[in-house]
Amino acid sequence: MSTEELGFDLAVVGAGPGGYVAAIRAAQRGRSVCLIERDELGGVCLNWGCIPSKSLIDQAASYEKVASFESYGLKVDRTGFRYADVHARSRKAASTLSNGVLALMKKNGIHVIKASAKLDGPGSISLSNGDTVTAKDIILATGSSASTLPGFEIDESRILSSTGILDLDTLPKSLAIIGAGAVGCEFAYVMNAFGVKVTLMEVEDHLLPSADRDSSKVVERAFIGAGIDVLTGTRAVGWVPKGRGLELTLAESGEETRLVCEKVLIATGRIPNSGGLGLDTAGVDCDRRGYVRVGPDYLTTAPNIYAIGDLVETPALAHVAFKEAEIAVDAIVGRNSEPLDLTLIPSVVYCEPQVASFGLREDRAIAQGTRFRVDTFPFFGNGKAVTIGMSQGQVKLLTDPDSGEILGAHIVGHNATELIHELLLARASETLASDLASIVHAHPTLSEAIMEAAASVDGQPIHI
Amino acid sequence: MSTEELGFDLAVVGAGPGGYVAAIRAAQRGRSVCLIERDELGGVCLNWGCIPSKSLIDQAASYEKVASFESYGLKVDRTGFRYADVHARSRKAASTLSNGVLALMKKNGIHVIKASAKLDGPGSISLSNGDTVTAKDIILATGSSASTLPGFEIDESRILSSTGILDLDTLPKSLAIIGAGAVGCEFAYVMNAFGVKVTLMEVEDHLLPSADRDSSKVVERAFIGAGIDVLTGTRAVGWVPKGRGLELTLAESGEETRLVCEKVLIATGRIPNSGGLGLDTAGVDCDRRGYVRVGPDYLTTAPNIYAIGDLVETPALAHVAFKEAEIAVDAIVGRNSEPLDLTLIPSVVYCEPQVASFGLREDRAIAQGTRFRVDTFPFFGNGKAVTIGMSQGQVKLLTDPDSGEILGAHIVGHNATELIHELLLARASETLASDLASIVHAHPTLSEAIMEAAASVDGQPIHI
Repeated sequence: MSTEELGFDLAVVGAGPGGYVAAIRAAQRGRSVCLIERDELGGVCLNWGCIPSKSLIDQAASYEKVASFESYGLKVDRTGFRYADVHARSRKAASTLSNGVLALMKKNGIHVIKASAKLDGPGSISLSNGDTVTAKDIILATGSSASTLPGFEIDESRILSSTGILDLDTLPKSLAIIGAGAVGCEFAYVMNAFGVKVTLMEVEDHLLPSADRDSSKVVERAFIGAGIDVLTGTRAVGWVPKGRGLELTLAESGEETRLVCEKVLIATGRIPNSGGLGLDTAGVDCDRRGYVRVGPDYLTTAPNIYAIGDLVETPALAHVAFKEAEIAVDAIVGRNSEPLDLTLIPSVVYCEPQVASFGLREDRAIAQGTRFRVDTFPFFGNGKAVTIGMSQGQVKLLTDPDSGEILGAHIVGHNATELIHELLLARASETLASDLASIVHAHPTLSEAIMEAAASVDGQPIHI
Repeated sequence: MSTEELGFDLAVVGAGPGGYVAAIRAAQRGRSVCLIERDELGGVCLNWGCIPSKSLIDQAASYEKVASFESYGLKVDRTGFRYADVHARSRKAASTLSNGVLALMKKNGIHVIKASAKLDGPGSISLSNGDTVTAKDIILATGSSASTLPGFEIDESRILSSTGILDLDTLPKSLAIIGAGAVGCEFAYVMNAFGVKVTLMEVEDHLLPSADRDSSKVVERAFIGAGIDVLTGTRAVGWVPKGRGLELTLAESGEETRLVCEKVLIATGRIPNSGGLGLDTAGVDCDRRGYVRVGPDYLTTAPNIYAIGDLVETPALAHVAFKEAEIAVDAIVGRNSEPLDLTLIPSVVYCEPQVASFGLREDRAIAQGTRFRVDTFPFFGNGKAVTIGMSQGQVKLLTDPDSGEILGAHIVGHNATELIHELLLARASETLASDLASIVHAHPTLSEAIMEAAASVDGQPIHI
C-alpha cells in the first residue's frame, strides 16, 4: 500500500454535527477542506443518537394511539407485531440522513477520508490508513461516548449503552434504565409505549435533574400514569446474571432491594473522546475529565488547532456543536462572530410530554439570589391542548421584575421542543413579555399558551 | 313571566371568541358586564368550528397511523369501528371548552343571559325572554354563518354545512366538497383519512386560493397521493337526488360532467350575522354584504356601539376576534392600544400537511410591483422532518431586498400552524433574517427549517 500526503486549508477530525457543519461552513468560505471520520458520516447524533431515537419516539407515539381506537371498536391483534420493522425504520432514517451528509460533502467539494486520525505535529495528522494529512488549521470534533458506571460494564447484551438499545431489533420483556436524564427518559417512554415493563431509576430525588422542577414533576406524573416504575433517590450498586437477564441490587436511603429484569440501559451521561488523538504531542491541553480546554473561539492551547462539540465543556448537544462549528470557522477565516451565549441554548427532551427550556432556572435563581418574577400558564387553559387530549403541561416564564426582560423559559407538554423557539427569539431580540403577549397567535394552537403566559407578566391572561 | 330591566357598564351580544373575550377583558378592567348568547357559550368556533374540527383532524391523523403498523405485522379489523365515538370525542372537546368559558364568566363576575338580543334604542337591548338590558356601551359580536350556494339549499341531510358535517355520527360512503378553502381542505383530509371517498372541488384553478401558490401545490400533491379526487377550475351547477345520495352536475371549462355521491359539503365561506339585530333602529350602518362598518377601534356609526369579529370585514378568524375584542374594550375604557395590523395576522389550515402564513404573498407582491427577495428551505433538508417521515413542505420567506426585513412568511408542512409563530415574532420585533438565522435552534426540530430559510436570505444555509 503506498501512502499519500494530502494538503488542505482545513482538516476536520470527526464527522458528527460539529465536524460536518464546520467542513461545510469552511468550504462555503472558500477553504479547501478534508473531513476525517473513522465511522459513518453524521456521528453519534445522526447514527446512534438524536435521529434514530426520534424515529423510535415518533413511532412509539403513533403506536400508543392505536389503543385509543380499540375502545372505538377497532380490533387489534398485536401477536404478529414486528418491532424489528420499527427498528429498521429508525435505521433507515439514520442512513438516509447519513447519505444526505455525504451528498452535502460532495456538493461542497469536501474531501472525505474514512480513517482514524492522530495529531503528529504542527498541522500534521497521521491516518490509520498510513496516509498523512497536512492542514493550516485543524478542527477536532471527535465527540463523546456513553459514560460507564462502575460495576456495570457495557456488553450490549444484558447491559446496554444508548447505542445498544438503538440497535435492538427485538423488545426485551423488561428493562431497567439507570439515569433519568434526557436519554433515560426518552427510552423509558419508547420502551413503555411498545409494551416493555420499564423501571426508570435516578440517583437524584427527581427525574430530569437538569430540568425545571415543575417540568420534572409533570413528566414523572405522566410516566407513572403510563405504567413506568419510577425510582428516584435510587442507586444501582451491583448485579448478577439471572437466567437470560439479570438481578440488580438497588440502594435507596440505605435500604437494599433487588430488581429482576431482562436488560439494563446505562444512561448516566457522556464523556469526551479525547483519548488516542495525540493531543499531548500537539500541545493540546485537556482538563482532568478529558474535556479539551478552549477559548471563546474554540482555539485550543495549540496554535491553529480548534476543538468543538462534545469534546469541550459546553452542553453536549448537537445544536451547540453546530454553532461552535460556525464560530470556530469564523475565527479561522477571520470573520467576527458572537461567542456562544449559554443563556440562549435550548435544552430539549423528546419524551411525551416533551420538555424544552433555556436560560435562568427557578431553583438556581433562588439559590444564587437572582431577583426574578415567575409566571405560568397551564396547558389545561389552552383550547388546542384540551381538544387533542394533551392538556398536561405548562409554560413557565422567568422575567426580570424591573425590566420585564425574559430571563428563562421552561415548557413541559406536547410539542414543547418546537414551541420553545418563539421564546428563544423573544429573549434574543429582547422582546418584552408584554410585547410578546400582544402578538396575535393563531387559534387554536399550543403557541397561544406562550402568549397567555406572557400576558400574565404584565397584565392578565384571558383563559385562566 | 315578569320582565326585568338589567343595567350594566357593558353589554356584549354573542359569546363566541370575540364576545366572551371582550366580556372577560372588560371585567378585568373593572366594568360590570353582561354577555348575551342565544346558543352555547363559545360560539361557532368552539362548538361548531375550530375546536371540534381540530379534534377530528387530530383523530384522523392518529387513525391514519394505524395503517403503518399493519405493514409491521399488526392485524387490524376495522369492521366494528365506530366513527360515532370519534364524533363523540369531538363533541366532548367542545362541551369541555364551552363549560370552561362558563367557568371563566363566573370567575370574572360576568352576567350571562341566554336569549336573543335586539337593539331598541341608545344603550338599550330587548331580549327574546322579554327582559331589557341597558348598558353604557354595547359590543356586537354575533359572528357569521356558513354562506349558501345558489341551488344547494343546506338540508344537513344530503347537503351539509360545516355544522352538519361536524354533527355526523356515521360516515358517508362518499362526499363531495364544494370549495377548497381552509374548511374544505380540512374536512377533505379528515373524511379521506377515515375511509370516505372524497371529491374536493374548487372554482379557482388551485386549492386554498388565499394561500401561497407553492403551499397550495404541496397540499394538492399530498391530497392526490392520499387518494382524494381534486377537481380545480370546477363549479357545481346543480344536483338531483339519487337513491339516498345525489348526483351533482359539474362544469369545468364549459364541459358538464356528473358526479354521484352520498353527501355534499358546502364550504364556500361565511356571511356576517348582522340581520335581526335592530341595527337600523340603532343607527348602525352595514355595507351591502352585511358587514358592520367600523372605525379602527371597532366603533360603529352609532355612538357607544362597537362591532367585532366576523361581523366586520376583517378576516373571519377566532384570533382576529380575540384581538378586536381587546382593542374595542381598550377604546371603551380609554386605554391606548395599537390598531389591528393585518400584515401580522396568521392564517392557518390544519389539514396534513398544514399551511400557515402571514404578510406579503409572492403572487400579490409581483402583481402590485412590490420589490422582494424570496428564499425557501425544503422540509426534505430538515433532519426531524425526514426522521418522522414528514418531509413534504417548505418554509418560504419574503424579505425586503434592501433592509432584510421579513415581509411575509409561508410554511407548508407538518406542524406549520405552530412553527409560524417564531416568524410572526421575528416580523413583529423587526428581527432581521440574519439575526434569526444566528439563533441556536434545538436539534432535531422542524424549527431548524426556519433558521435555515433565514440563513438563505443573507448567507448560506447548511443543510441544502
